[in-house]
Parts: sequence; structure tokens; C-alpha cells
Amino acid sequence: MSLEKSPISTDVNFEKEGKQFSYLRVPYSRNDSAWGGVFVPVVVVKNGKGPTVLFVGGNHGGEYEGSVTLLKLSRTLEADQIQGRVILLPALNLPAVQAGERVSPIDGRDMNRTFPGKHNGTISQIIAHYVHEAILPLCDAVIDLHSGGYSLDLMPYNSMHYLPDEELRKRTMAALKAFDAPVSLVMREFTGEGLLDYAVEGMGKIFLCAEIGGRGVLSPSKLKIAERGVQNMLKHFNLIKGDLAKPTTRLMEVPETGNYAYAQSNGIYEAFFEIGEEVPAGQPVGQVHYPESPEREPEVLTIGRGGVLVGTRGPGFVERGDCVAVTAQDLE
Amino acid sequence: MSLEKSPISTDVNFEKEGKQFSYLRVPYSRNDSAWGGVFVPVVVVKNGKGPTVLFVGGNHGGEYEGSVTLLKLSRTLEADQIQGRVILLPALNLPAVQAGERVSPIDGRDMNRTFPGKHNGTISQIIAHYVHEAILPLCDAVIDLHSGGYSLDLMPYNSMHYLPDEELRKRTMAALKAFDAPVSLVMREFTGEGLLDYAVEGMGKIFLCAEIGGRGVLSPSKLKIAERGVQNMLKHFNLIKGDLAKPTTRLMEVPETGNYAYAQSNGIYEAFFEIGEEVPAGQPVGQVHYPESPEREPEVLTIGRGGVLVGTRGPGFVERGDCVAVTAQDLE
Amino acid sequence: MSLEKSPISTDVNFEKEGKQFSYLRVPYSRNDSAWGGVFVPVVVVKNGKGPTVLFVGGNHGGEYEGSVTLLKLSRTLEADQIQGRVILLPALNLPAVQAGERVSPIDGRDMNRTFPGKHNGTISQIIAHYVHEAILPLCDAVIDLHSGGYSLDLMPYNSMHYLPDEELRKRTMAALKAFDAPVSLVMREFTGEGLLDYAVEGMGKIFLCAEIGGRGVLSPSKLKIAERGVQNMLKHFNLIKGDLAKPTTRLMEVPETGNYAYAQSNGIYEAFFEIGEEVPAGQPVGQVHYPESPEREPEVLTIGRGGVLVGTRGPGFVERGDCVAVTAQDLE
Amino acid sequence: MSLEKSPISTDVNFEKEGKQFSYLRVPYSRNDSAWGGVFVPVVVVKNGKGPTVLFVGGNHGGEYEGSVTLLKLSRTLEADQIQGRVILLPALNLPAVQAGERVSPIDGRDMNRTFPGKHNGTISQIIAHYVHEAILPLCDAVIDLHSGGYSLDLMPYNSMHYLPDEELRKRTMAALKAFDAPVSLVMREFTGEGLLDYAVEGMGKIFLCAEIGGRGVLSPSKLKIAERGVQNMLKHFNLIKGDLAKPTTRLMEVPETGNYAYAQSNGIYEAFFEIGEEVPAGQPVGQVHYPESPEREPEVLTIGRGGVLVGTRGPGFVERGDCVAVTAQDLE
Amino acid sequence: MSLEKSPISTDVNFEKEGKQFSYLRVPYSRNDSAWGGVFVPVVVVKNGKGPTVLFVGGNHGGEYEGSVTLLKLSRTLEADQIQGRVILLPALNLPAVQAGERVSPIDGRDMNRTFPGKHNGTISQIIAHYVHEAILPLCDAVIDLHSGGYSLDLMPYNSMHYLPDEELRKRTMAALKAFDAPVSLVMREFTGEGLLDYAVEGMGKIFLCAEIGGRGVLSPSKLKIAERGVQNMLKHFNLIKGDLAKPTTRLMEVPETGNYAYAQSNGIYEAFFEIGEEVPAGQPVGQVHYPESPEREPEVLTIGRGGVLVGTRGPGFVERGDCVAVTAQDLE
Amino acid sequence: MSLEKSPISTDVNFEKEGKQFSYLRVPYSRNDSAWGGVFVPVVVVKNGKGPTVLFVGGNHGGEYEGSVTLLKLSRTLEADQIQGRVILLPALNLPAVQAGERVSPIDGRDMNRTFPGKHNGTISQIIAHYVHEAILPLCDAVIDLHSGGYSLDLMPYNSMHYLPDEELRKRTMAALKAFDAPVSLVMREFTGEGLLDYAVEGMGKIFLCAEIGGRGVLSPSKLKIAERGVQNMLKHFNLIKGDLAKPTTRLMEVPETGNYAYAQSNGIYEAFFEIGEEVPAGQPVGQVHYPESPEREPEVLTIGRGGVLVGTRGPGFVERGDCVAVTAQDLE
Repeated sequence: MSLEKSPISTDVNFEKEGKQFSYLRVPYSRNDSAWGGVFVPVVVVKNGKGPTVLFVGGNHGGEYEGSVTLLKLSRTLEADQIQGRVILLPALNLPAVQAGERVSPIDGRDMNRTFPGKHNGTISQIIAHYVHEAILPLCDAVIDLHSGGYSLDLMPYNSMHYLPDEELRKRTMAALKAFDAPVSLVMREFTGEGLLDYAVEGMGKIFLCAEIGGRGVLSPSKLKIAERGVQNMLKHFNLIKGDLAKPTTRLMEVPETGNYAYAQSNGIYEAFFEIGEEVPAGQPVGQVHYPESPEREPEVLTIGRGGVLVGTRGPGFVERGDCVAVTAQDLE
Repeated sequence: MSLEKSPISTDVNFEKEGKQFSYLRVPYSRNDSAWGGVFVPVVVVKNGKGPTVLFVGGNHGGEYEGSVTLLKLSRTLEADQIQGRVILLPALNLPAVQAGERVSPIDGRDMNRTFPGKHNGTISQIIAHYVHEAILPLCDAVIDLHSGGYSLDLMPYNSMHYLPDEELRKRTMAALKAFDAPVSLVMREFTGEGLLDYAVEGMGKIFLCAEIGGRGVLSPSKLKIAERGVQNMLKHFNLIKGDLAKPTTRLMEVPETGNYAYAQSNGIYEAFFEIGEEVPAGQPVGQVHYPESPEREPEVLTIGRGGVLVGTRGPGFVERGDCVAVTAQDLE
Repeated sequence: MSLEKSPISTDVNFEKEGKQFSYLRVPYSRNDSAWGGVFVPVVVVKNGKGPTVLFVGGNHGGEYEGSVTLLKLSRTLEADQIQGRVILLPALNLPAVQAGERVSPIDGRDMNRTFPGKHNGTISQIIAHYVHEAILPLCDAVIDLHSGGYSLDLMPYNSMHYLPDEELRKRTMAALKAFDAPVSLVMREFTGEGLLDYAVEGMGKIFLCAEIGGRGVLSPSKLKIAERGVQNMLKHFNLIKGDLAKPTTRLMEVPETGNYAYAQSNGIYEAFFEIGEEVPAGQPVGQVHYPESPEREPEVLTIGRGGVLVGTRGPGFVERGDCVAVTAQDLE
Repeated sequence: MSLEKSPISTDVNFEKEGKQFSYLRVPYSRNDSAWGGVFVPVVVVKNGKGPTVLFVGGNHGGEYEGSVTLLKLSRTLEADQIQGRVILLPALNLPAVQAGERVSPIDGRDMNRTFPGKHNGTISQIIAHYVHEAILPLCDAVIDLHSGGYSLDLMPYNSMHYLPDEELRKRTMAALKAFDAPVSLVMREFTGEGLLDYAVEGMGKIFLCAEIGGRGVLSPSKLKIAERGVQNMLKHFNLIKGDLAKPTTRLMEVPETGNYAYAQSNGIYEAFFEIGEEVPAGQPVGQVHYPESPEREPEVLTIGRGGVLVGTRGPGFVERGDCVAVTAQDLE
Repeated sequence: MSLEKSPISTDVNFEKEGKQFSYLRVPYSRNDSAWGGVFVPVVVVKNGKGPTVLFVGGNHGGEYEGSVTLLKLSRTLEADQIQGRVILLPALNLPAVQAGERVSPIDGRDMNRTFPGKHNGTISQIIAHYVHEAILPLCDAVIDLHSGGYSLDLMPYNSMHYLPDEELRKRTMAALKAFDAPVSLVMREFTGEGLLDYAVEGMGKIFLCAEIGGRGVLSPSKLKIAERGVQNMLKHFNLIKGDLAKPTTRLMEVPETGNYAYAQSNGIYEAFFEIGEEVPAGQPVGQVHYPESPEREPEVLTIGRGGVLVGTRGPGFVERGDCVAVTAQDLE
Repeated sequence: MSLEKSPISTDVNFEKEGKQFSYLRVPYSRNDSAWGGVFVPVVVVKNGKGPTVLFVGGNHGGEYEGSVTLLKLSRTLEADQIQGRVILLPALNLPAVQAGERVSPIDGRDMNRTFPGKHNGTISQIIAHYVHEAILPLCDAVIDLHSGGYSLDLMPYNSMHYLPDEELRKRTMAALKAFDAPVSLVMREFTGEGLLDYAVEGMGKIFLCAEIGGRGVLSPSKLKIAERGVQNMLKHFNLIKGDLAKPTTRLMEVPETGNYAYAQSNGIYEAFFEIGEEVPAGQPVGQVHYPESPEREPEVLTIGRGGVLVGTRGPGFVERGDCVAVTAQDLE
């Protein structure tokens, strides 16, 4: 796989000093536009030598705190304020962001399941491939800003994986603490290949995945968490000067499948706990009602491991197989 | 218009003593089911003489607190606990409720814009017609439980209209206060014909429209508000015995179009206030960002009348014409 | 309502002697064709004085025996073979017929729920209105050939309603027997307004509704039943000469809602009886399996009135509310 | 029908002097926006006493010359340039205009088949009703600018109907000539009820329907024809001063159904003539090819009346029933 | 390709004694459910040493006899009744089964064209990959139960391919005869890669593909054939004890493309023969009618090789390219 | 990749003398047709030894001049008129051609981005693979006839690439001139992999890509250009005898991305120039109007390199990223 094969054209120059607003032009041939394209915005702010940090928003559409934080930053951050290079992708999966949906309405793909991408694939794959080949190699760290999206409400947290390499784990943990989200999680994934996370980690670079909010809503108070976290990152990586406040984040972990509960039938999910509440071990977490059959008893759902409720179903309706609850335990 | 023309068949008997779980069978001829039907659940609990109160949930789909309150009540309320008659329609627009969407996926209609319905119309119209002809005439009061739905987040409130008839206004206001939602609103509507509200008010009966929550989410704490309000109604109308706590609701009003703000362009809406905060007169309420163009300044939106923010846009994305903010003022 | 308002244009002349193949041109303005149209075929065969009988196929799409019988008849029947007038509408709801679906893909309407139609309505309504205003008044009898369609399998039968007018009932019963389908039913309907049946009956004319087969399939052996029945009608009404064989049809009735059973949940329906078998009173008629949950017991369904199974669910899957069984009893 | 029942709200004041850009806010309740709306732009330019002329663009979407002419005029025309009142509706069916489609993507309706509208109907009907009740009564003349749309290519013409009232016919003919399109047609319609034309004519007012171009294309040279025609109208009605050039328009007529030809099968339509060419009487106008069957001979189509080809099929593909050719004859 | 890469999680243990109801959880990230999943049911019944036989239902949705047979078996078969291991996949392509459609509504794939699957592919591919890697290697024989589906009606048969390996051919033929369907076919395929058949045969294992019925219908009498055949398989492979009745199956073959006939145009297909009838060589098998053009002669279709009609078109409508007839000849 | 793996079956024999009308049968398993297929027409005319030229139409649907030219040629060209072999694929992407759309409605693919195809891919990929493996190797030259399609209007031109191999460039240039379209272009592409062009060029064969017209329209006068060009090709390659007229084509080039202009916002595009007009360097080429906001100024677009306008946007509406203008300069 190599950059030359990418059909993307752009006038961005990652080595140029100063601030650039530019676009990755992805050819998109369709009935309404034979020679049309998707223009993915990229902003580069560079000043001399120093680390390169990539901030990503809109990896999924419908997750707004990250995108808005980066859109605002792109207009306020100037080259003479920093030392090094900041790359902003405020709407990585632009078609999904514009639709307000997790996956791209063009190809139905979840961008965060398509890395390292494919130069001759679908629009999402072509974008992923370009980022993988042209941008990730330039970076020292990647901060990917999510917000749970329509289907989930998540406690505002930032997260990292259980990393086997000790040195990378330490550097990543330091960044995780510096971001200082209300909660910091160490997680294991059960979702298969294709995450941006693995692509960056595989290059031996720092990767953080923040989840600031959820339910497809842009909350003013959660936006402040994202904005503060991004400023903390700029300081932590010495891109801008300034002291970091002592972190107050709560360090927790989500180690296993028992931390997740899933709906077993279709209906309306009534959670018994709000986000942030303690779910006692062995207790029901919620129940599924059947609006077409008032006489039918709801189905009570339990979760394998008790702990703090860090994730809950967003919309009231559920289908069999939907995740309805995620718990976390304090990290020893 | 008369009941005989309705194609709905049912075995419910509104005059029968005791508790009945029944269904309104609406014929629904379609490709997959020539002689199929939609079965709308109706629950009747009756004990001797006394007032009749109808509780409605699922007038819109995706508004869960009301439906779940009534589904739970239908299993716990027994005839010997009451004096009079309670009618429950926990999923009035059942196809919309099952889809989790405001309007019916079958005919695309907003049930709350279709009253008094039509016996030979679409599924939503046939249901509305039946309720209008067969159920409303039996009632002394109708409590319609909404929750804002996917597109809006609303401060938990109950509401009534500015009613011209003084006696009805007083009776309705007494019920509004007794429900004791955190906020009680007196409102004017700008949405056109067809509301259940007008149908009931036009018969000279008490009508309350509660909005408990929003964003298509079922919140445990808002569910408690709905459940308590319904219990208060049962007491207020002497269906069950028990003293009502002194109301603590805040009485407010939404008198004019200036209380609403609308998006002027498509993008991501960033609210500057959370629900319940005071919006100073003449201040911006939020702004619309353009994810495809980071260099473009957001469009700042103002609202005609300041006050407490009682409604805000649910999803982050907006289109021109979407309501983004509603304010209320304390009622003198 | 009057014919002059119909936007339909045609060169058919119902008073002209001989055979005409013509079309009803219904204007259909749409994105792809501003001045386009739907051309509904109509065939008229006329020879001197005599009765007028209208044969209808394709009132619903996906019911083939009637359409094919009439398509074949339209090519073989010549004016000099008859005395009187035969009008053939082999594809009344042409868009539905071409799609092989019960309802029109253009307006989603079941043609047999739209009579007497509307001159300024949707395509189906405009066609119904024209038939009602221009064709029905010419007729002495109308034979409407159905076949159950995709969602139902029906015992090959012809049917009439319980008619209050004794004279019309007798004439209709005579025609019903003369058609000589394997079963002849007298029925009550539970489907609401808009049937072609009511339109014709309301004019005091003979109306028969045949159901020859089902499941969206064209069966060679059932086609023969339809072809023979149509020939019998031509003889019965003295349009062609020839003796009618002594009928062997079994006379039965479907008097009430208890003759129908409906699915109560979504799943796979397993019928316990084949069409034509006797369902003992009080016995289960079938059960619904849940393919996503092998451990869950199927839901057993019963039917109010036993009798001969004359209708059963077509496709294996069912949704709550779908009709799964219809029984008939011998008519005393 | 009366204006008070319309759910439309607006701050436009048709009696106010000067220029106003305003909007008709049509409430549009849907899943994504409970209290959303469609904002239809209306521009009023008024200066003292004088005639009122309404110019309409975007009655159909995908017909661009009219909309763009009026959008440009709305920015350049100032009140002190005129005497009287000019009302501009540059995008009457706004949802259709934004989609570039003939009919509204919201309700699937052709706006020009919905007059006089319905205050409690669909979005298109509500707009039509408001125009009919609030705007048409103010006008002396209405000029409706169409362009054939995607499915048709039309010779640039303006047109009027065969009007029974002699005085109105004369005034309309004078305006028609003054517009001075390359061709001026007198027409009979075969499309049914609901045209804006009939609504205006029924009020005894001047109505012209221009068709400037077609195929869903905005042609620079045809835009000039529209712009010049509109200027001619402003002069003709004495709204602005200036002499009209002597008209050079060719006066023709389209009197009957024989002036139209329709496709009889599905395939690719090859026209034998370009727009403006003379089609000899009795000659084929084109043929339909079958791309799936090269060995099959194309079907040759003829037209009832020869004449100048003033309309031809836009897209290459055709379906049975599509209009493929329209001819006109010089008006005696 | 290896099992470790599969994103599927499950608690099934194929080596555990006794009966397990379990699920393969396939992660399915989508707009409504970021961390959702498809739960494919798997049932394992094991008792000591012995052969392993896999029964598959729902490889295609809309083919019900197999799924229902296995659902019923999963509730009745107990470990102590068998010697060896029975694995049941009653709904292999669960989303297709629930939709009652051949292909998955999630990814549009025909499961039986996706083997050996792909661990990072679509949902259907991920399931196929898991079955290929985790389950097929455990098996001695695989019995795949189909039913023709919506588009085809097939004579109840079981089938095998012309296998080059003599030993495998003999073992497979023995199983084919033991199943004892009304007809047993030896076939050649013309459908391309990806069949489960090839995957199993390529491992040198016994594979049978039964087609019990068709038309998307669950027939009580055909269900009995499937249930009896599965019991025969359990006996044949010595999983349960019991003597096999002497087979009465008719052994036939479908060797070449000449055994198939295809529609050449769109219309309504009238078969001249019922399933099981003998089609004489050189005779027409059916004809296609054109409902929009009664005057047009139907197109008569012939088939290359006469024989017993073992397959015919299901729905009445056909499109060019659809298979309308399949014949078989007795195997020498 | 090899031909044996293709699932396509056909009775065409490319080595047989005479004329054959045949089909490539591509298996297409879907809900409505388990064993259905797409039949892509192929016509072969062969007479003795001589060059082989492949003419392609319908590589994209909605581009009609090429398809109709080849459909007509397939009926008129006889083997005894030629020396060598002519292969015609008048509807390469048949599903797209029948839909009148650029991409296949079956798999959403642009055929001209899928070469060299995939034997086990989607329908478009399977067709591309077969052409690549079975037909291209037989050819000396390939002439691919396009017409811009719905979204573009192109000056009638034929084109070739800047070819690195001098000998191939010369031979291709000779053919390009011989075709004698009004304009002949030498181009560079910016659309990514998968063009038929590259597949043919990579085999060292002559390839021409003609664009005769556009906007999804079949123009009689442009059809003549295509027909004359194809006749010129037959003569140029000595397949038929006859002298070529001296070419009058204008030789031009489109060397870089600066020759293209793209829309930056959604609205209505007003071009300032007609096709064939000279666009002065540094001048605006058009502007985008906003029909929802008459008061908003249009956005003026410029193009990097002036020249003759050889391409312009087809439909009036544009979305951000759509190509609105292409210029060419005379080739030195």
C-alpha cells in the first residue's frame, strides 16, 4: 500500500510554516455527479521544529463535541502561538458528519472499522488509506475525539487500551492523565479489526480515544470538557506553553465482556441507573417493556460485573443484541 | 362522522366492571398481509361510579416516559383500588412507538396533527377517529404524556393552553398544578390543526399535555416525574384516595412566536445554555457551525424574548427551519 | 361526482359493435415524466342487444389467474361469438399488476379499498372513479377475479355477500352456483369501506368475488378453474350459447370474526392443517416459532370457529396482526 | 376556505412601501424536527399606487431559468424604480427546487396540480392555499415561469389558454405578445385539475405560463430570454417605464390530443427531429430501441398532427406512457 | 484465514457433554447501535464419542421447513438420546430468516455465495468464516436444508453433486438415499463460487443439499418430509438407534444448462405443467403474458431437455433472465 | 485471474464466421430470483482474417448516442461487408443502461472504475472481469462511446491519454484523428483506478474514449456524429472499404487539475458561457445561487486555466464538490 496510488488530490503542504485551511478531494463518481468529489477539511498549523499531534473529530458522525472543539480551534489557533505542528481533521468522515450519523451514508461504512483503508475502495476506505499513508507517519500522537453517538450515552471519559509495550503504555498513560477527563479508562475491545486505534498503536505512537458525552447531542457542559482536554493536550506535548493543573480524573478499567449487557428482545429499555451511579454486583441493570402488549411482564436484564455505570443505551427503543449497559471498576 | 363507520373491531367493553386488557384492531391491507391489522392496546380499569380519566402515551413515538409509566400502571392498577374509570392508551400511535419515531412509519402522519381523524383515512386517521368518537365522549379529563422526542430536549413540564372559557380554565389550571411537574406552562400553539388538545378542549373537558424529558431517551429520573404526576392525577380526580402534597411547580408561560428561535442554515448547533438556565434578553442563544468549512464563521442565533430555556434542539445537526430554542417567562 | 371531471382520456367506445382493444390514459405527472401517463387496458366485445358483463382482473396485483384468463379471453373472444356486451379489465390496477404487488407502487393504495374513487385523487382513485362513473352503470353483472395474493392461500372459491335485498340475493346466488368453483362462499366483510363489491351492489347489480388460488403463484390447475368459471358466466348470462353442467360446488359460509385467526407475535407460522382440511372446534390451528431463540416455546394459536380451512397464511414469516387462518362452515 | 385557518406565519406586509425579503413559515412536523418548518421566500417591492404583478419561479423544481431570473431581480429591483407592486416567489415549491425535482420530496406532490390548496393538507397544499388566499387576490396579473423540467425539452415559449371570456382573452393575449418569447402558444390542457393557471383565470386575472428551456438544465442563452421577458412584463404593466420593442414572437397553437405522441414501450427514445424543426404530417417522429435485445427492431412512433416540434422527450430512456413529442401549428 | 481473527464471541463449547443453547455474537456497528450485534443461534447436543453431524437451516431466509424442523428438534433432542454430537444452526443467516428473504437485509449477500467467508468482511461473511473455521472442521457430515424460497417451487428433493472422488461419492450417495426424500438428485451447478457445498466437499466430508418445497411457504406436508429426513440422517449416522425403512426415493439427475429455461421478457409466466409432471422433449414449458398489452401474443418458452419438472417459477411475474423451469431425468 | 473462474455462461463463439447475436449470462441471485441472471448482449460479426475492433456502448447508463449507434449497427452490419472482426457491446453495464443511470442500480458501481474486474465480485465486477479476460485479448483496438451522462454536458469530442509509449501514441493519435469528432482531446485523468482505458492501454492496444453529447439526452444531431465516427473507425481499421474524408477535428488538450472548476456550495449553478465558447483566463465561469435565500449574494466561481469550455454542469442544481466547468487549450 502506498500513497501514490491514492486518488485523493489536495494542495495541503504538511511541511509549510503557518496555518493552512485545505481539503482532501476524494473523487466520487455517481449518477448526479460523474466527476464530483467529497472535500474532507484538513487544517495544519505549523511553527518550526517540535512534536506533531493530530486531533481527529468526526471519525463517526453524530458525535459533536470533538468536531466543534476542532472547528473552533481551527479559527483561533495561530502558528505563532505554537512550537511544532498541529493537524486537525474536524470531520474525518465528512459525509457521516453532515448526515449526523455514525456511518457514512455513501458507503454504509463505519470509518473506525476500515483502517488501514484501501486506495481503490469506497469513499471511507480511500479517506482512511490516505490518513494512514500520508498523515499518521508524520505524527507523534493522535487524539481521537468521540462522543458515544446516537445509540449510546457515555460518561465523559478518555481512554487507552491495555498496551503490551511498557514504554508506550507509560507515555500513553501520561497523556491520558494529562487530558484530565472526568474518568480515564483502560479498555479491551470486542469489536473486531479496523480501528484507527490499532493503526496508530501499531506504529508505536500515542493514541487516545475520548468519549465526551453521547446520544447525538451537543451538550454545552460536555463541550467544555472537550475544549479543556484539547488545551491540556497542547500543553502536555509542549505545543503551547502553560502549566497543567493537577489531574482530578478517576482512573478506571473495562476489562472483559462481563462489563457489557445486551438486550435480549425488542422493546423499550428502562434503565434502573443513571450514568455515573454504582451498579451493585448481581443486580438488574434495567428491563425491556413491550408497548404492543401491556399485559406482558418486562424482561429484566442483569450485567456480569457490577461497577460504575459508564455507558447506557441512548434511544428508548432497543433491538435484540443492542448494548444497554457498560460498567467500569476502579483501576488498582 | 360516527362510530359505526369505523373499521376498527375490538372486544373492549368500556362499561364493564374490573380490569380489561384489550386491543383496537385496525385493518391494514398491505402487500405482505392482505387481511392484516394493527392492534392498538387499550386498558380499562373500572369500579362503580366516578369520574373517567384517559391517560395517553405514545401519541408520538420516541417519547418513552409516558408509555412506560402507563405500561407499568396497567399491570399494577386493579379495579378495587379505584372509584370510577381509568382508561389507558399506552401506545396510541403503536407503529410509531414500535419504530421509536415521532410519526407513523405506515402513513407518515403525526397523530397529533390528525384529530378528529377520518373513518376511511389512513391508519393514524382511523385510530384518531375511533378515539374521538368512542373514547373521548366517555372522559372527564385527558392527560396526554409526551417527552419532546428525538428532535427536542424539553424541561420536564406539564402544560395547558390559554383557554377562553373561564370555568374550564380554572378546572384545567387546578389539574395542572396538582400534577406538580417541575414547571407548569401556559402556552399558545403555532402548529396548525389536528391536535388531540383541541379535540378534547372543544368538548369542554380538561386537557393537559405533559412533556417529560426529550431527545428520544428514557431517563430514570424523568420517569419518576411522570409516575408521580400520574399518581397525583389519580388522586386529584378522586380515582384513588390520598392527600396531594402541596405543589412546588413553577408556573410559567410561552405566549408568542418570539419565544422560539429557528436555525437559518444547515450545520451543527452549539447551544450556549443548558435547559433551565436563564437566557438574558437580547443575548445570542447559540450558533451554527459548518463542518465542511472550518474557515467559515459560525452563524450566531438570537431569540426574541429572553427567559428560562425550556426547550433546546436535541440532535447536534440542524437544518434551516428547525427549532433550536424555546424560552418561558414566569406567569404573573 | 361526475365523469366529465375525470382527467382520463380514451378512445374506447362502449357502444361500438365489434371488438376493441383500448386504453384508459391516466395522466401521471412525476419527476421522470411531466406529461406521462398510466395506460390501463380495456377490451370491449359487443354484438347487438344483450346483457353487459364486466370481468375484472388485477384489482390487486400479484393475483394472476384472473388476469391471465382475461388476457387469453381478450385474444380469443370475437364479437360474432356473443350476443350482448363483454367488458374486460384484465389489469385494473395496472401498476400493481406489473409490480406483482397487492397495492399500487405509485400511491400505495389497495384499489379494492378506494371505490367509488375520486376524480382528483391519486392514480388508483382516478381509475376507480372512472370505472365507477363510466363502466359500472353499463353493466348487469360484475365478476371480480382475485387469487388471494402473496400473503394468503385460499381454497379456490367464488363468493357473494349476505345481501339484504332478496331479489338481488337470489340472482347473485344463481350466478354464484353457475360459476361452479370448488367452493362457493357467502361472506361478511371486516375490512372497512371502499370495495368494488359495495359499489356494484349499491347499484343493485350482481357482483361476485372469486378467489382462485393464492400465494402470488399462477397455478396451471387453478387457472383452469378460472377459465371454466368465466366460460360458465358467459353461458349463464346468455352471452354465449351452451348448456351449463350441473354445478358441483360446495356451498359454505364465513359469517363472523370468529372464523379468522391472527398471529399474536412475529415469527414463523407453522400451520397444522392444509387448505381444505377440517379444523375441529377448539383445536389449535398452528403455532409461531422464534428462529432467533430456539429455546423459546412456540406460541400456539386457536381459532374461534372450527370448520373447513379455506384460507391460510401464504409466506412462512408472520407479524403480529396477520391473518393466519380462515374457516368456513357448510351453509344450511 | 379562508386565510385565518392557514398554519403559515410570516412577517411580510404586502401593503408596506419599499422592498422586503421575507418568508412564509410552513410548520413541518417530522421525526428529525418536531417543531420545524419550511421557509418559502417571498419578496415584495412596492411603491405607491399601481398594478400588482406576481412572478412565480419554482412552481416545479428542476426548472431553473425562472428561479434564477427572479433571484437576480430580487437583489436588483428597488422600490424607487417602480410604480405599483411586484411580488416575487422565486421558489414556490422550495423543497422541490432544492431537490432539483418536479415534485416535492416531502409530499410527492406536483404543486401545479394542487391549487387551490388546503389549509390542513400537506406542505405543498398548505403553500398553495396560502398563495391562493393571501396573494392571488392582490394581483392584476400572474406570470408563472417554467422550463420543461428534467423530462421534457421545450422550445422557449410563453403560453395562454383558449379563454372563453373575450375581454380577458384580449388582455392576456396582449401580455403574451409583450413578453415576446421566441414562440407564443395558445393551448388546451389534458392534465386534470389543480393548475395555478385555473386558479388565477378563475379570478378573472391575466395568467401566462412560460416554458423557457428544459431538461433540468440552466442554459445561459435561455436565461436571457427569461430575463428579457420579465423586463418586458414590468414595462407592459407600467411598473417600470420604457418602451417595448416590437414583438417578434411566432404565434402558434396546440389545440388537441393529436398534438402529442406517447411511448408505447420501455427503451431508448431516438427523436428524428430537433426542437423547432417541422414534422411533416403522417411522418414518424422517432423510435424506441431495446438495449437488452439488439436483434429486436425498434418501435416507430407517429404523431397525429404534424407541425413544428415544440416539445420532445428529455432523457434518453422512456417508459410506456411518456410523452415524447409535441407539435404546434401557426395560429390563424 | 484463522479463527483467532474472527470478531465473533460466544460461550458455546463444542466439546462439552449435554445440550447447550448458545449464540454466536457478531458485532454489528450501525447508526442505531454502535456496539450492537447479531446473535446467531447454535445448539449443540453431545454425548460421548461418535460422529458429528451439522444440520443447517436458514442458509437462505424464506425457506422454512428446514428452520422449523431444527427449531423443533432443538427442543426435543436430548443428549442421552444420542451417541456422538449433533450441531444445529437453525437460522444460519439470521437477519435473512427474520426478514423472510433469501439474502441478508444487512449486507445484501446470499450466504450460500459467500463461503469460505472473511473474518473482516460483512455480517454474512463473518458468519460464513466462523462456520468454516470453527464448526466445519468438527463435522463428519453436513446436511443443509433449503426450500426453494420465494422465487422457486421445487419438487421436494435432496441432492448431491457429481463428485470426482469415488469414495466420497459413495458415502454421500448412501446418505442421500438414506434421507429418502421423494426425489434424490445428482446435480451440476452453474452459479459461481461460494457455496457451503464446495467448502464441505473440499474438506472431504459428506454434504447434502435438500430442497423441501418452495415459494416462501411453510407447507405442513413438506415439513413432515424434512422432519422424517432429519430423523433418517440421525439413524444413518448412528447418532440415534433405529432401523431405516427401505428408501423409496426416485434417483434422478440434472446434468447441464439445457435442463433450465429462462424468461426472455418481463410479464406474467404461465407454466404449462405442474411440478412432478413429465415435460416432453421439444415441447413448450410455458408462456409469458403482457398485462399492459392484451393484444400482444404471449412469448412461448421451450426447454432444452425434457424430463420431469422438478422446479418452476414461484411468483407469477417474471423478469428477463429469471429461471422458469428445471427438468430432471432418471439417473441410469 | 483467469477466464475459467468466471460464472458467466454464453453461447457466443468469437471465432465463428458470420454474425451472431448472443448474451453473456451473469448469475444474479436475489430475493425475487434465486437462479436469475443478467443477460448482457454481445454481437460478433466476423469475416475471415483481419483486425478485431471492439466498440463499447453503455459503459455508463444514461449515455445514449453510443448505445443507439451500436444497436443500429448490429442490425445493419453483415459479415460479408467486412474483412476481420467487429465486436459490439452496445450495453456493457446493462442494468445501468436500462435504468438510464451512470452506475449500476444493482451494485452501485461505476463500471468504468471496476476494471480489471473480479470473477467473484458484484455483477459489474463479474462483467468487467469477463470482458478483460475473454474479449480484450482478442482486440486490436477498443472504441468506448460515452456521452457525458446526466451530470455533464460535454462538447462532442473523442479523446486519448498522454501515452508514454511513442509507437502506441502515434497509432492512437492516427485513430483519434480518423474518428474526426468536432474536437479531439489529449487528456490526463484525476479519477483513480479502474478505467477500461487503462486495461486496454496496459495491453498495448489502441484505446479511444469518445464523449458525444451529454445531459442524459439523446440528440439527433449528436447521434450523427457518433454514427459517422464509428463508420470512420471501420474504414480506418480496414474493416470496411472506403476513403476517409480529410479530418476537420480541432486538436486540443486538458492537461491539469486547473482545467476543472468545482462548486463550493449547494445551490443552482448559472454558467456564464455555453459549451464551445472561449473562457478568458482569470474570468469567472459561473455562479451559485441560493433559492432559499434571495437576499444572499451568489458565490462566483473561477477556473484555473482559461480556454474553450468543453464541459459544463448538466443539471441546474449543484452540490459542493461537483464539477461545473472544464476547459481545453489547443494542442501545440
